[in-house]
Amino acid sequence: MESSVNLLKTDTVALDEANDAVVIIDQTLLPGRVELISLRTAQEIWEAIYQLRVRGAPAIGVTAAFGIYLLANRLETEDFDAFMAEFAEQKQYLDSARPTAVNLSWALRRMERVALQAGREEGLTVGQVKERLRLEAHAIRDEDIKVCQKIGENGLTLLSPGDGILTHCNAGRLAAVRYGTATAPIYLGQERGYGFRVYADETRPLLQGARLTAFELYASGVDVTLICDNMSGSVMAGGLVQAVFVGCDRVAANGDTANKIGTSVVAAVAGYYGIPVYVCAPTSTIDMDTPRGEGIHIEQRPGGEITEMWYREPMAPPGVKVYNPAFDVTDHGLIEGIVTEYGIARAPYEESLKEIMARRGMRVD
Amino acid sequence: MESSVNLLKTDTVALDEANDAVVIIDQTLLPGRVELISLRTAQEIWEAIYQLRVRGAPAIGVTAAFGIYLLANRLETEDFDAFMAEFAEQKQYLDSARPTAVNLSWALRRMERVALQAGREEGLTVGQVKERLRLEAHAIRDEDIKVCQKIGENGLTLLSPGDGILTHCNAGRLAAVRYGTATAPIYLGQERGYGFRVYADETRPLLQGARLTAFELYASGVDVTLICDNMSGSVMAGGLVQAVFVGCDRVAANGDTANKIGTSVVAAVAGYYGIPVYVCAPTSTIDMDTPRGEGIHIEQRPGGEITEMWYREPMAPPGVKVYNPAFDVTDHGLIEGIVTEYGIARAPYEESLKEIMARRGMRVD
Repeated sequence: MESSVNLLKTDTVALDEANDAVVIIDQTLLPGRVELISLRTAQEIWEAIYQLRVRGAPAIGVTAAFGIYLLANRLETEDFDAFMAEFAEQKQYLDSARPTAVNLSWALRRMERVALQAGREEGLTVGQVKERLRLEAHAIRDEDIKVCQKIGENGLTLLSPGDGILTHCNAGRLAAVRYGTATAPIYLGQERGYGFRVYADETRPLLQGARLTAFELYASGVDVTLICDNMSGSVMAGGLVQAVFVGCDRVAANGDTANKIGTSVVAAVAGYYGIPVYVCAPTSTIDMDTPRGEGIHIEQRPGGEITEMWYREPMAPPGVKVYNPAFDVTDHGLIEGIVTEYGIARAPYEESLKEIMARRGMRVD
Repeated sequence: MESSVNLLKTDTVALDEANDAVVIIDQTLLPGRVELISLRTAQEIWEAIYQLRVRGAPAIGVTAAFGIYLLANRLETEDFDAFMAEFAEQKQYLDSARPTAVNLSWALRRMERVALQAGREEGLTVGQVKERLRLEAHAIRDEDIKVCQKIGENGLTLLSPGDGILTHCNAGRLAAVRYGTATAPIYLGQERGYGFRVYADETRPLLQGARLTAFELYASGVDVTLICDNMSGSVMAGGLVQAVFVGCDRVAANGDTANKIGTSVVAAVAGYYGIPVYVCAPTSTIDMDTPRGEGIHIEQRPGGEITEMWYREPMAPPGVKVYNPAFDVTDHGLIEGIVTEYGIARAPYEESLKEIMARRGMRVD
């Protein structure tokens, strides 16, 4: 695992300008093999996103931003309209790789806006527009790193050296560029000698906790122990866990939080044992237009993910009904705090989240 | 699956006297294949228990009882002492198949006592002793069926037609002879048209819920849905579950219950959603000498069961720490009732369990 420790010192996604490529860790090979792959063509970038070689909302967004910059940079026309026509075509193609991934289309739209602003409103040359796109892609990358870092700093104030931390699914550096969200306090604590002990739920059915979280923490030298999802009660009853840190897919205005299936189970068990649950949420995931968790649509996925996907042979009777929701909603009453890059929101969340979002609106950086 | 429906009309363990064999469902082939196998030699019986072709405390006990009867019945001597010497040898051999399985040595000791009583104290012939052993083995079988049936009757009073029931691991007919414990109310309800909807936790890491419970309920025509262990919150929040029924390995005098890992998680989540949790417990599992759950030793098992046992390839980074307790203890405060063959105990359990055990002592059947 020595090599993977080194490899994980690289970011999950990076721009390799010398070789005209986006470099990613191929996550479909984890945890068995750590391989960096270089994406050069539009097809390679599309395929990497489609096949989940890169996954996690922030990481997908940054990959798309770097990708569309590289593709645009290769266009040979000096005519801005012709340039934008080809840009739009590439953008639409990349966007089709994962139609429901919000960050994918968000990053591509942001890049397009920058190009239009520079070429149409400011009247810059195509060469200058390309430079603007390069800077914007790096800005998207830098913002992700900064947001995660701030979440880490804020989260770290909630922890003490030696604490046991339980986490679920992967809201780690592999889902972002560096640090991750739920793992950010862990990595910062690791840098500062906090000596955390981390318990990683394997997170059935897709095993992101075992394949990704346990992997990235282990590869980074963090004291991590893998458990099955149904062992949270055992480690909590045994006094091994002082706090739960999880990521989120969407936070409603009242603090109800949608995250990977099983998060509400961890939260209810933590509630029973009196252990605080913290949701790490970049403000981009806080949706003030959704008043409560009931309003969040939950994706149902194929039963085969449970019954046979990973197994040597089918592990359930052929034909049996399977229920496989990808996410669940954790009631705000089970959440001790929502850790954002602008501070920590606490109940009542209607007010504290509003305040956080106001701080975000006022930022000058 | 038509054939398995029919096959599951047979008991999990049966004596085939015409063919001088113990017949079992080979559970190592489930859920892929339903195969009845006939065990004739001492080696075959030993191997079936050792390899978990038959598992579950009651089923192991009955297999051992039928097995030692068959082996004793073949002995050709008419001399009682010679008969008992060979009996003791076979008993010791079978007993070594799973040294920690309480029911295995319990059933074998019970058979030996009957033989000694008949031959030594009553002075019966070896032929008559063999007949007593045959009757005793059947009595052990019949008692298991009766206990499960009574647990089923008592449990059924807690349910209404159309109820959703969540169960964890396998406390089903495959762990016993017929009915099972936690599944007994489900099967009785099924016979009487209650139309239950059952949610079966897959029960990581050994997947008994997926491989065995989902299988046996599905094969019996019960409306069963397989879920991952971390989906209990989702089905409970959705109003799909009205009661939780689980088995147990041991119940302490205060009602604290040791059962398959994850049971305490299900119970804490059910507690949060206000859903009652019922533990189905033959009085043989109630241990009045253990005052509280802390006194129950929890077996730790190899991490490979989590990281690679079932998978096409390792699903966690090689070398990562793994915590794999086989059981956990559910606090009595999370248990709405303990369903035994002598009635339903409710809090305060110190008193109600004492009363149940007193009824057991007074039984005349």
